[in-house]
Amino acid sequence: MGGHAAFRGAVLAVSGGPDSTALMGCAALGQAGIPLVVATVDHGLRPGSAAEAAGVAVLAARLGLAHRTLAWVGPKPAARLQEAARAARYRLLADLAREVGADLVLTAHTLDDQAETVLMRLCAGSGPAGLSGMAPTRALDGLTLGRPFLSVPKSRLVATCEARGWSFVRDPSNTDPRFGRARLRRLLPLLAEEGLTAGRLARLAGRLRRDEAALSEAAETALRALCRPDPGGEGRLVLDGRGLAALPDAVALRVVALAAAGLQGEATAYPPRLERLERILLGQVLPALREGGTCRRTVAGLLLAAGGGRLTLGPEPPRRSPKPRPA
Amino acid sequence: MGGHAAFRGAVLAVSGGPDSTALMGCAALGQAGIPLVVATVDHGLRPGSAAEAAGVAVLAARLGLAHRTLAWVGPKPAARLQEAARAARYRLLADLAREVGADLVLTAHTLDDQAETVLMRLCAGSGPAGLSGMAPTRALDGLTLGRPFLSVPKSRLVATCEARGWSFVRDPSNTDPRFGRARLRRLLPLLAEEGLTAGRLARLAGRLRRDEAALSEAAETALRALCRPDPGGEGRLVLDGRGLAALPDAVALRVVALAAAGLQGEATAYPPRLERLERILLGQVLPALREGGTCRRTVAGLLLAAGGGRLTLGPEPPRRSPKPRPA
Repeated sequence: MGGHAAFRGAVLAVSGGPDSTALMGCAALGQAGIPLVVATVDHGLRPGSAAEAAGVAVLAARLGLAHRTLAWVGPKPAARLQEAARAARYRLLADLAREVGADLVLTAHTLDDQAETVLMRLCAGSGPAGLSGMAPTRALDGLTLGRPFLSVPKSRLVATCEARGWSFVRDPSNTDPRFGRARLRRLLPLLAEEGLTAGRLARLAGRLRRDEAALSEAAETALRALCRPDPGGEGRLVLDGRGLAALPDAVALRVVALAAAGLQGEATAYPPRLERLERILLGQVLPALREGGTCRRTVAGLLLAAGGGRLTLGPEPPRRSPKPRPA
Repeated sequence: MGGHAAFRGAVLAVSGGPDSTALMGCAALGQAGIPLVVATVDHGLRPGSAAEAAGVAVLAARLGLAHRTLAWVGPKPAARLQEAARAARYRLLADLAREVGADLVLTAHTLDDQAETVLMRLCAGSGPAGLSGMAPTRALDGLTLGRPFLSVPKSRLVATCEARGWSFVRDPSNTDPRFGRARLRRLLPLLAEEGLTAGRLARLAGRLRRDEAALSEAAETALRALCRPDPGGEGRLVLDGRGLAALPDAVALRVVALAAAGLQGEATAYPPRLERLERILLGQVLPALREGGTCRRTVAGLLLAAGGGRLTLGPEPPRRSPKPRPA
């Protein structure tokens, strides 16, 4: 848990489960060398969640760490509740970090969580970027999110908690088969029997992350080289079509996805769905550019116009409203 | 089945199962425009295999196609029998193609075979290159191997055979749980229930193949740029160490794997195992080059020597034999 000396302080996300209890315990033992605050988010979704947060506070005090309970208040959506809870959790943790002057948020995601994430995304039909799973560190709203246990099996954390006498709870939603993750968790032993262990799934994520980094770097370099001034106005992006068509498909696809994200703003839109972008760009737009033809297609609100040796990306023009019917 | 006009002739690998029976039937219907010869390899491993080959000959004659039965003769290994049978099958098909003046060998691998291959390799811990599965076309001993059904579900081929009255057999080894592939085949419905359909596994293979092509191209370009003359002798390869260390890890890894394959000869050695190459190159050799230090490590019979701003690859020096013991 050392090596964070480059940071001013850290917020530890601790639910009271074994993984995050081990995170708190190891941080207390390891003398991280920076101020630590333990935070428990009470989502208020299950009876007993406030008691669990109080339990974490007791252990934190025993370990000599400051503790805060963060309540998720306000309206809760009926649909996609888990996603909303996750977004709220990260927002509350980042807000607390800023309040206490910390620039690092640590979560206790394990190798098993990574494996489950990869398997879930495999099942969802994700591409290689999605299958690269969770990053060991990533930006979080101007701060850094770190996952120091991402290569550590959960079983080792459970054993550490038990050996040290750090009491933990088990989140009942973890085994509720209504949630996809819990259902997949029951598939994992069958896959492990055939060799597809959690360790192999997590290692695949690391390899794909490595490949993705190289391909993203190539796409960023290519995008800078291919950008042309646009005489036509704002909110559009013009790329050299011949140069784009000469790139390997894997790089051309990422150049356009990157350009689209730049135009649409990361926060405002999902990236165009990979499958549709593949079909339109690789199947229609790039062939048109290679043959010197023209082609206009929209992908997720973005107009791709190929022609005259250029590819112009811009917002989809508003559809004409249907003529009012005669009364 | 059209579009092969660039080829002089094709050998169709037909076992008599539904997939290859459909291949033969569609080729006969489709007037491929090039001479066709149907070939059945009799591995002589099951009773009834000769009768199955004779059955294929009967249907081929009915469809107006030439047919040859190719017998796998000679000693058969006790271990890795399936691998040896596969190698013998491709060798016999390529030999026949050359004999009849064909330059294309077609097999009936389906989308389901592709999905099983990806799942098998996932279970075996393969990297992204392995997970890109079977290629739609590849070189086969100076000829081209083509897989025209690689995006077609097996069920459609079975239905086509039944609708056309093309009789087929089912290979009993396909359902024998002693074989890994048959065991995995029983996992597929469970995964499909969670969304991981054969179509998604096959699409993943295509995406990884696309990424792999871009990364291989980058590695080939980098290898040419980084090669330095070697004053020290033959059978070695000297790379600019600073240039290598500045590459993204994913490209540097492929540069060294490519250089190793060039030195060791594709036919004579397996490429250094990915996991060990990752550990040695990314964990030790590249850090040494970045810090201007030295490092000597062997990977699969290949010596990597970093130092003086260079990485030298060459055969592992012979180990000194232990001194003879005094009598």
